[in-house]
Amino acid sequence: MSPIDASPSNNGRGSATWSQSWTHFSIDRRGPAYCRVTFDHPPINTITATTVVELAELVGLIEADPDLNVVVFDSANPAFYLAHYDTENDPGRTAALPPGPTGMHAWLDLLVRISRAPVASIASIRGRARGAGSEFALACDMRFASRETALLGQFEVGTGVVPGGGPTARLPRLVGRGRALEILLVADDFDGPRAEQYGYVNRAIPDAQLDDEVDQIAARLARFDHDAIARTKAYVNDVTLPADSEFPPALADFFGMLGLPRQREQSARLQELGWGTDSDLERSLGRRVVESTPDA
Amino acid sequence: MSPIDASPSNNGRGSATWSQSWTHFSIDRRGPAYCRVTFDHPPINTITATTVVELAELVGLIEADPDLNVVVFDSANPAFYLAHYDTENDPGRTAALPPGPTGMHAWLDLLVRISRAPVASIASIRGRARGAGSEFALACDMRFASRETALLGQFEVGTGVVPGGGPTARLPRLVGRGRALEILLVADDFDGPRAEQYGYVNRAIPDAQLDDEVDQIAARLARFDHDAIARTKAYVNDVTLPADSEFPPALADFFGMLGLPRQREQSARLQELGWGTDSDLERSLGRRVVESTPDA
Amino acid sequence: MSPIDASPSNNGRGSATWSQSWTHFSIDRRGPAYCRVTFDHPPINTITATTVVELAELVGLIEADPDLNVVVFDSANPAFYLAHYDTENDPGRTAALPPGPTGMHAWLDLLVRISRAPVASIASIRGRARGAGSEFALACDMRFASRETALLGQFEVGTGVVPGGGPTARLPRLVGRGRALEILLVADDFDGPRAEQYGYVNRAIPDAQLDDEVDQIAARLARFDHDAIARTKAYVNDVTLPADSEFPPALADFFGMLGLPRQREQSARLQELGWGTDSDLERSLGRRVVESTPDA
Repeated sequence: MSPIDASPSNNGRGSATWSQSWTHFSIDRRGPAYCRVTFDHPPINTITATTVVELAELVGLIEADPDLNVVVFDSANPAFYLAHYDTENDPGRTAALPPGPTGMHAWLDLLVRISRAPVASIASIRGRARGAGSEFALACDMRFASRETALLGQFEVGTGVVPGGGPTARLPRLVGRGRALEILLVADDFDGPRAEQYGYVNRAIPDAQLDDEVDQIAARLARFDHDAIARTKAYVNDVTLPADSEFPPALADFFGMLGLPRQREQSARLQELGWGTDSDLERSLGRRVVESTPDA
Repeated sequence: MSPIDASPSNNGRGSATWSQSWTHFSIDRRGPAYCRVTFDHPPINTITATTVVELAELVGLIEADPDLNVVVFDSANPAFYLAHYDTENDPGRTAALPPGPTGMHAWLDLLVRISRAPVASIASIRGRARGAGSEFALACDMRFASRETALLGQFEVGTGVVPGGGPTARLPRLVGRGRALEILLVADDFDGPRAEQYGYVNRAIPDAQLDDEVDQIAARLARFDHDAIARTKAYVNDVTLPADSEFPPALADFFGMLGLPRQREQSARLQELGWGTDSDLERSLGRRVVESTPDA
Repeated sequence: MSPIDASPSNNGRGSATWSQSWTHFSIDRRGPAYCRVTFDHPPINTITATTVVELAELVGLIEADPDLNVVVFDSANPAFYLAHYDTENDPGRTAALPPGPTGMHAWLDLLVRISRAPVASIASIRGRARGAGSEFALACDMRFASRETALLGQFEVGTGVVPGGGPTARLPRLVGRGRALEILLVADDFDGPRAEQYGYVNRAIPDAQLDDEVDQIAARLARFDHDAIARTKAYVNDVTLPADSEFPPALADFFGMLGLPRQREQSARLQELGWGTDSDLERSLGRRVVESTPDA
């Protein structure tokens, strides 16, 4: 029996039998080789210290599961894949998260481990995937985006910090220097067609077909030999993954800049405008992030 | 007189005067600086030990020819560029091929040498280029694909092995990690427009214009200074070519996995379905490769 | 007060108050954080030793300006962004340019320094950007091109030399080996849509919207925190910029090949055809460069 398992009658979210009781996502184990993870943390799927702890547990199980070939990460909220990181007024809790097995901060650790896991990981993206949400998608092996609803972005520079979860390392390798600098410095949203054009996602797929196409891809991977997948991915990892040493400095910079006066003012302004809620600010964060700048 | 030469009256396939008598491709030397190589190994242009031996001879002549600027590789069969590698029921013959001048297995050796040769190499792709056929195209400097008929893919993972001829090293550098993992792990076919979008080929060109456009490009290169081409390519080689050491481990893995029970069963099933012949299986191998999996 | 400054009433080209009196471009400092540089060297914006000296001065000011977030480089001539390098019948003057602070030739030096500067640089490209003009655009952080009028290319190989200002290092990292070899070896023009498809530019934008879109991007960057921009760019630099040592050998090769008989003949032929003037040759240089080859 595999570590991430479901009862034979499992046919949807919430019906799996788990030793874990995760609260920010649900699991649908469609077969020994195929698992779906659905983010479900209302109202907008922010990533918090709790999400990090739960994802780290999940990643540990994924790594240890000899039967698993593919994990698909999607969202229960069609408007928000993963909004962004939120300290929920308790930044101390995030800072106090113990480092993971790689020795890195828990967030970096779980992203690095997903990228290395001997399993194909797929982000199936509806709605907004910004900041840490984009970082999560970038750590997955493949990204498929709803043509009509996906919005990806790294808005951090617009709020006065560097993006700390690895996109400075991952994006340039994926989309090239010019487009990476546009995504990271201009810090605006990229919709499905633009994300596809830039290589930020593998493909934009019409929303009505997204679930079917991703399911077909995953079901296909589930039928293939585990070792062929794991070894082939390992060769690609050797050529494409950033060195571990590339990640911690940007995260340290991110934490250091969080405390600076300008950033605190921008953060307070964003709170007033609707940060962390299903607000127009969050729906249009790429465009509206400039409203938090001092001269706004 | 250049090492790869043709009689003055040479105006098509087979009319060249050669010391070699190659059987899996023909040569049309259109001028001192411009050579066309047309794969012609019925019924579907599989690559066999014979193809490898003949291509290795050809590459040696290409490397040594001071007049040659450009080589175009196309196919006499509009439905198959190069189907894939085929041991033709004699895997021992492939295993016994002596290593090439680089010290690597003859197949890796000739691909590496084409990539490094001081000559522009162009794959003009009609029909299927899968497995080793895709590996050959990836070793060429440029790839132009028929918009309507080209199908590229690395189906190997679908048959229970790793792709061993270098695509784990070359594809990620060409199309980025996300799309490379999709091509290699999902192991499906990519048509001309998708291959163009992903950067798998330089461009997809309407089939009716493919020959003219590629010929114009090649004729242009033929007029340029050999040294300017060779030196410019050498600078790009320094930045883009995988280290030689990246190639042999994946090929060793490929040979090792060939003997495993699951792979042998899949291979036998593919034989039954029409492997190596101009069958529906070969025409739709990307889609149908899953029929060889144990649960099919 | 910042090193590159303008009077409060500055509202267009030429009204800035400068210590410098540059002749090949004008400056519009739209605010402390936002500067526009407009190439204006009739008739076709060639780059000469004078341009290099002036740009090197400008780059020094950009590097030293703590208020500056973004510099946009555009052209006063809608048909020519930067035509190419021109020695103006005095190659000795170019050769005699003293090396810059990096120790490299003045041209390489200023390109490397723009790429590293803690400021976002944007090339807004109308018309032709070929040879050194393309090299300049490639050294900028982002490139936006007029969909209808932009033509980018590295024609150097067509004239019998290697491109010496870095595109052999920068292009492969931006567009991949296959497309880089096509751009550099085939040496033809790439229009806006093709340049976008290949990743040679970030995006092609309809000409009527180019100025507005680039201005919106730049105005947005001007409102962001300087340090967040500078640090984020620095992380991307670590991952994407070629080593300094990659640049000088190709430039040395370029200078060495300039003196060879074939190249001198091609150069003389290009002079006869209209080189350096607003001629049909210059407008169609990608196509017509073959007219300079010995067999033409």
